[in-house]
Amino acid sequence: MTERMSRRRLLAGAGVASAALVAASGAGPVGADTSAPVPDNSAIPFGGARQAGITTPEQSRMVFATYDVTTGDVAELAALLAEWTHASSRLTAGKPLRGPGGQFAPPPDTGEALGLPPSQLTLTLGFGPSLFDSRFGLGRRRPAALVDLPAFPGDDLDPSLCGGDLCIQACANDAQVAFHAIRDLTRLAFGTATIHALQSGFGRTASAGTGRQTPRNLLGFHDGTANLDIDDEQAMDRFVWVGHDSDQPWMVGGTYLVARRIRIHLEEWDRSTLQDQEQTVGRVKASGAPLGGTDESDPVDLFAVGVDGQLVIPDTAHIRVAGPSSNGGQAILRRGYSFADGVDPQSGELDAGLFFICFQRDPRLQFIPIQTRLSQIDALAEYLVHTGSGIFACPPGVSGDRTYGDGLL
Amino acid sequence: MTERMSRRRLLAGAGVASAALVAASGAGPVGADTSAPVPDNSAIPFGGARQAGITTPEQSRMVFATYDVTTGDVAELAALLAEWTHASSRLTAGKPLRGPGGQFAPPPDTGEALGLPPSQLTLTLGFGPSLFDSRFGLGRRRPAALVDLPAFPGDDLDPSLCGGDLCIQACANDAQVAFHAIRDLTRLAFGTATIHALQSGFGRTASAGTGRQTPRNLLGFHDGTANLDIDDEQAMDRFVWVGHDSDQPWMVGGTYLVARRIRIHLEEWDRSTLQDQEQTVGRVKASGAPLGGTDESDPVDLFAVGVDGQLVIPDTAHIRVAGPSSNGGQAILRRGYSFADGVDPQSGELDAGLFFICFQRDPRLQFIPIQTRLSQIDALAEYLVHTGSGIFACPPGVSGDRTYGDGLL
Repeated sequence: MTERMSRRRLLAGAGVASAALVAASGAGPVGADTSAPVPDNSAIPFGGARQAGITTPEQSRMVFATYDVTTGDVAELAALLAEWTHASSRLTAGKPLRGPGGQFAPPPDTGEALGLPPSQLTLTLGFGPSLFDSRFGLGRRRPAALVDLPAFPGDDLDPSLCGGDLCIQACANDAQVAFHAIRDLTRLAFGTATIHALQSGFGRTASAGTGRQTPRNLLGFHDGTANLDIDDEQAMDRFVWVGHDSDQPWMVGGTYLVARRIRIHLEEWDRSTLQDQEQTVGRVKASGAPLGGTDESDPVDLFAVGVDGQLVIPDTAHIRVAGPSSNGGQAILRRGYSFADGVDPQSGELDAGLFFICFQRDPRLQFIPIQTRLSQIDALAEYLVHTGSGIFACPPGVSGDRTYGDGLL
Repeated sequence: MTERMSRRRLLAGAGVASAALVAASGAGPVGADTSAPVPDNSAIPFGGARQAGITTPEQSRMVFATYDVTTGDVAELAALLAEWTHASSRLTAGKPLRGPGGQFAPPPDTGEALGLPPSQLTLTLGFGPSLFDSRFGLGRRRPAALVDLPAFPGDDLDPSLCGGDLCIQACANDAQVAFHAIRDLTRLAFGTATIHALQSGFGRTASAGTGRQTPRNLLGFHDGTANLDIDDEQAMDRFVWVGHDSDQPWMVGGTYLVARRIRIHLEEWDRSTLQDQEQTVGRVKASGAPLGGTDESDPVDLFAVGVDGQLVIPDTAHIRVAGPSSNGGQAILRRGYSFADGVDPQSGELDAGLFFICFQRDPRLQFIPIQTRLSQIDALAEYLVHTGSGIFACPPGVSGDRTYGDGLL
């Protein structure tokens, strides 16, 4: 380390830049100022070369929706994408949708966000593999990287929570603002697309006054310590944004989103000992330090051996298996939210966990091999079951009069 | 009106103090300062003559849980209630649970709220009718007012979302803090009680900077305009708190909680015209004014007749049917949260709506007759279906070494 590096850069290069689950609900690494004491209700600009909601610091609430396109007419699909583009630019600015209106028409906006500030709403659009089937003649526009996800050992997927022709990730610092946006966009799709699945999630509260602490996930561990640094443009170009080498020019400046609904068996986790939990994750629960370290920001030493001759960070520890050094240097930008969806009627256990979202340049090189390793080796996998899954190509951002469909259609 | 009255008092007496659903997710009436621009992360005192979370200004997030007691031993039930009392006093102060701990035991606290401020967490406990069955010999301690709710026309109740021996309402300005509390309390019940149902909800965001505006529900209408005034002690004594005339001395200073999971058919609502929506509710959507008025705070004139000779506020308008003048002067203290639980696999529609909670002195005189009228006459009922239901006796608050079970057991 011959040059002066920021603490964040240091961490991003410290050997564990992608502990896939343990860091999943954090916006950024330790040291990133992601926990302002006062929530930001401002607007995040909609237009631009990249879509917002990808390298945007994580808001506290999420609603993720997937859609099935019901029309077979590509012109109607294009019209929907144009409407969604226009509506998204208004909603993210905190403005209600407009329309003919009047007493004898349905109100053009559903109304529950009237008077609420933009609350940093971002709306991020993606295209699923099924959109490229025979219906719209888009087969030749399908990016090679937009593969169908393979089955992973231990998956217990509910088809109603998988797939989708389109997805929208709505994030905001107000749950009502995020839900309102999805509801209005769903409404605009009437006759063209129907909602397939909807997931609500919660994360760090920007307003919680927690200063610069890394948030914790439902495992009770710090989450986000070793995520990629959203302010590190080189890392974003290397790991997140699709470059000019893409087989599909319309995806340049875009990224691939993988979403996994990961239920955590909280009851079992909560009955395991502190030692078990820390060996499973590879970190100290209280401080977030890697095992063998004292501070959350300590570098991860995967080779350290204890006085007992054993690895300090076990072979199967989550941060080892998920980290770049176990994955050919690959990493993903994680963004995820906890969920609590009630009680599973079968088991009587909580249906709660992590709605994991990650962004990457090529899932064939990033999420898929990382998750393959995790599902086979990760000690944490014992406590997890994946119940929903999706992969989507997120096109680049739009500006001016352009719409989401312009590049693709 | 010969005495000087506050604006809130004026509204509370203005003829429509209990529009059961339209005002349900608001903390207080117009004019109440329920929307501070900065969220309050402070602690709400746990001990006291009354339980918190009843006349406490509404926090922005809720997790409501019900439990089935699995032990038949009344001493174990008493021990659970004592543990819950102690744990609640710690959790509401923002402190983690304590226990033996150490490396070789499960951590005494699940950990996800470590470092988070109290966030105005309140935990409100209730006893369901089934607790008074033959198991614990409590039949003679059952209050007459703790009736089993009757079936209402149009109910479509899911048994897994109904009833419960115990309930806990957790409200906070941080979803993670509310969920954490329920999770830790559920854990403490291991071997004594199991979780029966869990509902997450969202409401106004204290931090939204919306000033003194009344929040809106998923109908898009202002909600809370005509709720009882939590600062009006006379109204609270008359309508909410159980008095010394109770047949069960242990309930003096307590109240009865009714919870209803009300799914709103949002798709149908959103397709109805503005005129239909306003006639259904009885208010102007944009301003919140009663039909015929101009300001949200205008008094409701139920007798006004338009130039067409028709009632300005229709016979079946929600604010008319739900109001005290249609219900023998009775009113309830409403507290409710919106929910968005995904997509109903049967219909493909959003499973979203209002988790309605109300508090009252005697449900036989308050919720039950009001809901009976609503289910028969209310125009809004066309858009609603009740899918979950519960009634609970909330004992008074505790102080010092006393526990929730002391009065009852």
